Amino acid sequence: MSYRLSDASEFLSSGATVHDYVSSLLARIEARDADVQGSVLAQARELDRVPLDKRGPLHGVPIGVKDIFLTKDMPTQHNSAIYENDAPAVDAALISLLRSAGALILGKTTTTEFAHGIHTDTRTPRTPGGSSSGSGAAVGDFQVPIALGTQTIGSIIRPASFNGVFGIKPTWGSISREGAKICSVNFDTMGFLARSVADLELLADVVGLEDDAKPITPFKLDGARFAVCKTHVWSQAGPGTVNALALGIKLLREHGASVEELDLPEEFASVTKSHLTVFQCDAKTTFMNEYIAAKDKLDPVLVGFVENQFTHRQHLEGLDNLAQLRPKIDLIASGYDAILTPSVVDEAPESLATTGNSIFCGMWTALHVPVVNVPGFVGDHGMPIGLSLVSARYTDRHLLRVAAAVAPVFEGGGWKPSV
Amino acid sequence: MSYRLSDASEFLSSGATVHDYVSSLLARIEARDADVQGSVLAQARELDRVPLDKRGPLHGVPIGVKDIFLTKDMPTQHNSAIYENDAPAVDAALISLLRSAGALILGKTTTTEFAHGIHTDTRTPRTPGGSSSGSGAAVGDFQVPIALGTQTIGSIIRPASFNGVFGIKPTWGSISREGAKICSVNFDTMGFLARSVADLELLADVVGLEDDAKPITPFKLDGARFAVCKTHVWSQAGPGTVNALALGIKLLREHGASVEELDLPEEFASVTKSHLTVFQCDAKTTFMNEYIAAKDKLDPVLVGFVENQFTHRQHLEGLDNLAQLRPKIDLIASGYDAILTPSVVDEAPESLATTGNSIFCGMWTALHVPVVNVPGFVGDHGMPIGLSLVSARYTDRHLLRVAAAVAPVFEGGGWKPSV
Repeated sequence: MSYRLSDASEFLSSGATVHDYVSSLLARIEARDADVQGSVLAQARELDRVPLDKRGPLHGVPIGVKDIFLTKDMPTQHNSAIYENDAPAVDAALISLLRSAGALILGKTTTTEFAHGIHTDTRTPRTPGGSSSGSGAAVGDFQVPIALGTQTIGSIIRPASFNGVFGIKPTWGSISREGAKICSVNFDTMGFLARSVADLELLADVVGLEDDAKPITPFKLDGARFAVCKTHVWSQAGPGTVNALALGIKLLREHGASVEELDLPEEFASVTKSHLTVFQCDAKTTFMNEYIAAKDKLDPVLVGFVENQFTHRQHLEGLDNLAQLRPKIDLIASGYDAILTPSVVDEAPESLATTGNSIFCGMWTALHVPVVNVPGFVGDHGMPIGLSLVSARYTDRHLLRVAAAVAPVFEGGGWKPSV
Repeated sequence: MSYRLSDASEFLSSGATVHDYVSSLLARIEARDADVQGSVLAQARELDRVPLDKRGPLHGVPIGVKDIFLTKDMPTQHNSAIYENDAPAVDAALISLLRSAGALILGKTTTTEFAHGIHTDTRTPRTPGGSSSGSGAAVGDFQVPIALGTQTIGSIIRPASFNGVFGIKPTWGSISREGAKICSVNFDTMGFLARSVADLELLADVVGLEDDAKPITPFKLDGARFAVCKTHVWSQAGPGTVNALALGIKLLREHGASVEELDLPEEFASVTKSHLTVFQCDAKTTFMNEYIAAKDKLDPVLVGFVENQFTHRQHLEGLDNLAQLRPKIDLIASGYDAILTPSVVDEAPESLATTGNSIFCGMWTALHVPVVNVPGFVGDHGMPIGLSLVSARYTDRHLLRVAAAVAPVFEGGGWKPSV
């Protein structure tokens, strides 16, 4: 028998069992440890039980898997002494970094389904804001001092704002995303929620976030230059955010900073559309395997992503458009100490059926620049509202220094956290 | 006690045990299932045993983790019914897609350390070419009909060429990388090695690879337009590749195809440098956690990546340069049915201390375009040599159709696989 896949399929469809076929292959392959042989023969028996009309196009086809892919029934060892006895018991890279620093992994905070559905079981009076819902609520409610979040559109900054805590979405790619479920390979960013900028800075030390130049310490507001960017979607801002931004500007000026209005060039109005197109195309690839394996168990929102009708051409136009805007926003941002911009359209909506609007967060996620949410303001219903500080890619440590100077000033906005 | 991280650290350094601290937190947090409580208290006891001088900056600090991060001692459930009982036993997305199609996961093929060191234990007379070493060798030696590979520089195309088999590195991002260890978030691409183009096409069906337009079937060489791109590193080609390319051009012309020489614009000469800069900067982030946890167990090559001295500015210049070249190569490639270009500098080197030169593969990986290795040629020592076919991003299915027409013609190059 030849060993091409198509011949194997023919052999199997002519009546031979997968068990027969695999036994013949195992004879050719040098005998390895009994565990692997056992796993292979168990798979073969299970496949042989699949009714003929339910068999897939690769029924019984043996595949060799490069040992960097997780497989639920075999160790994943990466040919590395570090993973020699992997069971597979794997920590995400960020968990491993935190454990190396002595952190205690207290538990998993709830998220919307795969960080992108709507369903969440966090119990708060209003929506905690997806998808790092539980992380935001847990920090806001003083259950944990810090929590991990991820942001693809607004999933760190929005819950930080809704829960009245600090949050950082660092420069895209600056913290390893290894072991965190992928939504969009082009946008997903690992970050933190905490109760102070000092806590965020400690975390930045632990994960090795560094700028090219050491940031000026302490950063002084007196004489500092801010831009305020209302963005092309300013018309969506509700009264809480309109008031917060006006008050934030006033507070900064009272402390000696200059704040000038920044109108981004017209081409930046395309960011939101490019972002949402690329995100959905990325998500189609990401959730394809769950969709094929168990579509009925997927949130309809995610099913919609997989079934989106964007063309590859639209996907690439979005990708290439965002890529050419990134050096431009870096250049604009580097003319200021930071850009001040809304975190959210308003305080958390009352409905638990939504995670809230993320339009203001999304554009900065798409541009890969770092963002810090600084709480301090209050909406019409007494719920917290934060504002975002933004700077050029890979100036995260500088941005945290600016946030440390801004945070006590924004306390004048009236929001008081309480246990 | 306040619940800020910095206060917690103070509390702990003042003599309280982590166990005390965590017990107080668990009292605040609604009691959850006993397993999680047990895991947390076990962690606390372990941390309490760490000598004072060995304690990290986050010693005993509890962290809430969004439930999309893998944690080795707690389930990762993504708030999804699909992962309700995750133990955590996780398949990579590609494994899940293959299992849905009935494939049998035969075993893990060896890789160089984390797919980027040098060490591999594949036993072949010459280097099988990293890093999908085992995958290439297993298919080449008829042990399995197909194998999974990943490519960050040349790790599918090079072993495909060295082992005389077909390989596809699809468009970057077109197959989910979920569950495959990350080397470079900007370049890692999932792909396949197989013994025929038909087998690669079956796999492309299973993972849902589609072009915007249905490719012409069958693709006819008579009247087809090829470009031959020797690239800016042509001077590194050895006699085997020089002969293979000349013979490949001759065979295509004999079958009625036109083959014209393509000199890429001068700016494409920067691709290799940008690629290797970005790759090393990406790898610094990727391997930071293993470096911090167990530097002494890491291949010195990987240690070198983490300790690289590139600035973020150089990293971003490389990223932005490659991004602006991608739509340009799409436009150039769309003027032809495919671009013919070397896969490797020559047949596999005799030394097992190297995985071989990947300079010819790297530039196409950096540009995110699909590449198929077609075997058929032979080097001075009788070892196989393949040539690469390249087309614009997201024309993978078209490229496979072209490869299906080219493959029998390149059999005239003299390479004969044998069991």
